[in-house]
Amino acid sequence: MIKRRDFIKKTGMGALAVGSMVTGAEAFAAKPEFKWKMVTTWPKNFPVLGTNANYLAKTIEQMSGGRIRIKVYGANEFVPAFEAFDAVSRGTAQMGHGAAYYWKGKSEAAQFFTAIPFGMTAQEVNGWLYYGGGIALWEELYDRFNLIPTAAGNTGVQMAGWFRKEINSVDDLKGLKMRIPGLGGEVLKRAGGTPVSLPGGEIFTSLQSGAIDATEWVGPYNDMAFGLYKAAKNYYYPGWHEPGSTLETFINKDAFVQLPSDLQAIVKHACKDANMDMISEFTAKNNMALGTLVNKHKVVLKPLPDDVLKKLHGLSHTVVQEIIDRDSFSKKVYASYNGFQQQAMRWSEVSEYAFMRARLL
Amino acid sequence: MIKRRDFIKKTGMGALAVGSMVTGAEAFAAKPEFKWKMVTTWPKNFPVLGTNANYLAKTIEQMSGGRIRIKVYGANEFVPAFEAFDAVSRGTAQMGHGAAYYWKGKSEAAQFFTAIPFGMTAQEVNGWLYYGGGIALWEELYDRFNLIPTAAGNTGVQMAGWFRKEINSVDDLKGLKMRIPGLGGEVLKRAGGTPVSLPGGEIFTSLQSGAIDATEWVGPYNDMAFGLYKAAKNYYYPGWHEPGSTLETFINKDAFVQLPSDLQAIVKHACKDANMDMISEFTAKNNMALGTLVNKHKVVLKPLPDDVLKKLHGLSHTVVQEIIDRDSFSKKVYASYNGFQQQAMRWSEVSEYAFMRARLL
Repeated sequence: MIKRRDFIKKTGMGALAVGSMVTGAEAFAAKPEFKWKMVTTWPKNFPVLGTNANYLAKTIEQMSGGRIRIKVYGANEFVPAFEAFDAVSRGTAQMGHGAAYYWKGKSEAAQFFTAIPFGMTAQEVNGWLYYGGGIALWEELYDRFNLIPTAAGNTGVQMAGWFRKEINSVDDLKGLKMRIPGLGGEVLKRAGGTPVSLPGGEIFTSLQSGAIDATEWVGPYNDMAFGLYKAAKNYYYPGWHEPGSTLETFINKDAFVQLPSDLQAIVKHACKDANMDMISEFTAKNNMALGTLVNKHKVVLKPLPDDVLKKLHGLSHTVVQEIIDRDSFSKKVYASYNGFQQQAMRWSEVSEYAFMRARLL
Repeated sequence: MIKRRDFIKKTGMGALAVGSMVTGAEAFAAKPEFKWKMVTTWPKNFPVLGTNANYLAKTIEQMSGGRIRIKVYGANEFVPAFEAFDAVSRGTAQMGHGAAYYWKGKSEAAQFFTAIPFGMTAQEVNGWLYYGGGIALWEELYDRFNLIPTAAGNTGVQMAGWFRKEINSVDDLKGLKMRIPGLGGEVLKRAGGTPVSLPGGEIFTSLQSGAIDATEWVGPYNDMAFGLYKAAKNYYYPGWHEPGSTLETFINKDAFVQLPSDLQAIVKHACKDANMDMISEFTAKNNMALGTLVNKHKVVLKPLPDDVLKKLHGLSHTVVQEIIDRDSFSKKVYASYNGFQQQAMRWSEVSEYAFMRARLL
């Protein structure tokens, strides 16, 4: 996935054309009763992640008949990308759009609301969030910061990444210099690799020059736009480190309670709509991009070997265990998440998984 | 899945307590500008399918501040279950909630908007509907009937069903009397089986007495409520015949255009929210029910053998081919659906499928 520092150097993208939202807003006759700012961690109009934030703002405006007008800011347009959380917490902006693992400095538990290595898929995690107590725990955590969080998108299973050399065994991870943030990076380190941090703008040249051996990014659609296939031909799957990353909105609590109940309902349900919208868009665009990468750009698609996956799975448990041992709220969140996952895996094994296997026979 | 006739005998369920929607509506101070009727194909408050229709109506009311009030009717409360389509078409009700394959008598293409045997999963089909042209084709079809359709839920992969005897080979399908409606039933017939129609209320006793050898219904949660585990112990997966059935709303076009644009947006986005809500609820409740069925009721979970699945897969293509050969709009819809599926399968194979496989190692 995309790391904090990646966007610092990408502010230039803020100069791109203003999205369709503003045009849409101009069509409304009603005078806005609420003018909100939405600060995001994405470069303005960043494909899917940023454009879905625009979609969310537009949906809220349309459903409210223009009574709420939301101006979406790309990273660093109004506040620096990773000050979005604090800005909304103190009310400088009313709403934010990002990913909870960016805020692990506030609470280690936050990252569990984005993704856990070898954790749940998009469909499973939404079951947990909406019907398994997940959102209630998330609200409990963000309440400390005067924020109301909710899910507003999902990437689906990401890709394991781009590798200059083949990965044929656990030994090939040793000394591997890979750009991989967060919990996934921690897991790689335990496997003997060297996770490195790189701003987005430096990934391509670092991979091409051999300064790094590998990198992950998001999935075929975003990866193709980044041109990573020109720097490394081995494209490994599956994205064990981010099997269904939830994107979030967070709303300033004081701003939210000022809304009449119909507008509160509009804001919350628009986020659930956006959650469906993003995974649908990723599914459609990753499909197409994967075909282009394989057929046109001759990318070599490879599964990580089973023993490598087993090793990474075991180490993922170690990394999570250390977090829940030292942080009580993380322990509480993980108990809920993992309890749901154990049931969900059994059901997915006989439903989605068994069907997809049957279809390939 | 659930067949048309199943509900005819279940009208008695309409006497159950009125859902939370009415209570919610009473809380609104605003006088409704639009009083709509939503007719459904489900017994009132039928778990997940019917209660999600209530959820949809409540969401629309809350977001509109009570400007639209929608009274939800269970099957046969206002019009017979399977006259819902005609009732909304002529404006007797403004909105309907059901599944498109109930309307194959109007157009054979309709059933492709619910599910196709060995077709797409929930996540894939939503990619097609929202970002692959699916909804546009659906609108084109229903426009002939003065209706606007959209997706409003998904069951996820269903179960293959309950079988009194084991299915160990293709030969075991020969002469098998199974309650299985629609395209799945057609496929079973080609495999030498005998698909039978039974009202919902007769399924349990027919299975217990041996009048039928097998039945499918929905998934663990709905199947458990029906008590099917008491009549047959072999619970087979996966639901090859319904790998991600889309539930629908259909709206009378004249009623829809009378709404101001903000209420139009509310109705449409509420359906997309409900789509996310239903698959999340099914995921959570099927998880739990599967555990109860296996651990408490000692149900024997079994995968259909690979050669049986391959045979059914081949026959599914035959059944679909015959439909598209005789109906030009079905051909157009299937071309779009299948084009998307071919890409989606490749992506799912390296993402959701590969990850779920890795997690089980």
